[in-house]
Amino acid sequence: MSLLVVGSVALDSVETPFGSAENALGGSAVFIGMSACYLAAPVRLVAVVGGDFPKSHLKLLEERSIDLDGLKIIPEGKTFRWGGRYHYDMNTRDSLYTDLNVFEHFDPVIPEQYRKSSYVCLGNIDPRLQRRVLEQIQKPRLVIGDTMNYWIQNTAEELQKTLRVMDVLIVNDSEARLLTQEPNLVKAAKRIIGLGPKIVIIKKGEHGALLVTEETIFSAPAYPLETIYDPTGAGDSFAGGFAGWLAKTDDLSPENLKRAVVYGSALASFCVERFSVDRLKDLTYLEIKDRYRSFMELSHFDEGT
Amino acid sequence: MSLLVVGSVALDSVETPFGSAENALGGSAVFIGMSACYLAAPVRLVAVVGGDFPKSHLKLLEERSIDLDGLKIIPEGKTFRWGGRYHYDMNTRDSLYTDLNVFEHFDPVIPEQYRKSSYVCLGNIDPRLQRRVLEQIQKPRLVIGDTMNYWIQNTAEELQKTLRVMDVLIVNDSEARLLTQEPNLVKAAKRIIGLGPKIVIIKKGEHGALLVTEETIFSAPAYPLETIYDPTGAGDSFAGGFAGWLAKTDDLSPENLKRAVVYGSALASFCVERFSVDRLKDLTYLEIKDRYRSFMELSHFDEGT
Repeated sequence: MSLLVVGSVALDSVETPFGSAENALGGSAVFIGMSACYLAAPVRLVAVVGGDFPKSHLKLLEERSIDLDGLKIIPEGKTFRWGGRYHYDMNTRDSLYTDLNVFEHFDPVIPEQYRKSSYVCLGNIDPRLQRRVLEQIQKPRLVIGDTMNYWIQNTAEELQKTLRVMDVLIVNDSEARLLTQEPNLVKAAKRIIGLGPKIVIIKKGEHGALLVTEETIFSAPAYPLETIYDPTGAGDSFAGGFAGWLAKTDDLSPENLKRAVVYGSALASFCVERFSVDRLKDLTYLEIKDRYRSFMELSHFDEGT
Repeated sequence: MSLLVVGSVALDSVETPFGSAENALGGSAVFIGMSACYLAAPVRLVAVVGGDFPKSHLKLLEERSIDLDGLKIIPEGKTFRWGGRYHYDMNTRDSLYTDLNVFEHFDPVIPEQYRKSSYVCLGNIDPRLQRRVLEQIQKPRLVIGDTMNYWIQNTAEELQKTLRVMDVLIVNDSEARLLTQEPNLVKAAKRIIGLGPKIVIIKKGEHGALLVTEETIFSAPAYPLETIYDPTGAGDSFAGGFAGWLAKTDDLSPENLKRAVVYGSALASFCVERFSVDRLKDLTYLEIKDRYRSFMELSHFDEGT
């Protein structure tokens, strides 16, 4: 089934204890799309870049069969740029700069041929824009959305309205706590269900992810990587793997939602193995399947005696 | 198989956002023993208390078939007392007082009839005392030990010597990082294996536990409790469930180690449901089995299509 991805496309400059990357391909829509493309087709991208956006990056996305008809290029503008530095423990980072550039006035116009997309994955953008996207889509089968501390703190009312029209909210643990003022993550997830989404996924970084619905609680581990080169995009790759698996299978049963969480975890684990999209760009479906099986080995145990 | 437990027996006064308990039964040996007793037999306890230790607490331990021949009572002394207060998010606590009393000069003498114990679980005590215990035991099948920040920081050399004679080290994530100066938990576990223990378990509180051996990595989730009444003793209950299952089954295969980690997680999840040992004291084996199965539901997913 078709998957529409709306979010940012950026040029990231990242420093980690393991090295650095300059003006590397980044942004939520890129990580979501580059992860989902191994599972679902077509993957359609709606975003905006400036005239400075390298043709090589466009080529890379096209090679992964990502439909770029919805990517607006503003020749006289500059692409969104972000610079960040990760600390030694990789769990904290400093944003060095955030130049929104053309992304500041991003107005997602959904091309006619995208308006019947079955699955929609909304990257972390202004909740008003997330709603504007949905107003242009005809009855999507599932709307998956992300948000972040900035929108929770500064556009709380708009976010509440957007949550009412989201089916799945994917947030990290600190965002879930901030949104609900509830430290217990299971309670926080249930409160979010009360706000609209039927399905809540709480990402816990190195501790894995929690899937909560009215009926189900599922806990997926994180892949025990010994070296994380660059955590940038891990959360978006999770969303891409999750959305991609659901769009591929078009099955919203509890068992399949669990599988989707593990595919999300698998794609996130690949993402952080290299800088930018370096690991994501030439994955194979077989590698992803192998990683999925590694997650089974990592978390399964038998009934015992 | 027999399980020898050595550690503290204490009177705890605890405040949490959900209430408080005064002079409640506590201490590492108590939580380990009260958890292991549902799985293994005999469970033998070596510890020390003062003349003020309530007879009702002794009765409770005896009712759970815990062998108290190794519990030394010093009539003129006072029992170890600890007071603590947990914060709203339950992840941090303040120690209000720590009165070691008779525990300050604890010298674990192992009764003759305990010296052939097959399984040994050493609660968090001075690493010198942990070694002194082991010197009195004849070829135990498995030595499981705990430690804490205090010993890592203040008796580093003694701890290194003790680690060389431990088979399993159970620590929490911050202790693992402190011991190895390595933020990545998988790397930290592998470094600990280099120090002696063949099996390392890293407890991550609300994020579950990690089992690492030369060949295996296993990630167990935490039980998604909505209300944690009192986290005191959760780590020791984990050790008790883990050690109890291994002593019951006498099987050190990777598959059985995984089961033991889940039994440990199950006992820890019961422990925090009430204050002190209130939930542990009248569990049934059936309840524990049911909780074990809940952990399967919580973490298992199938191969998919």
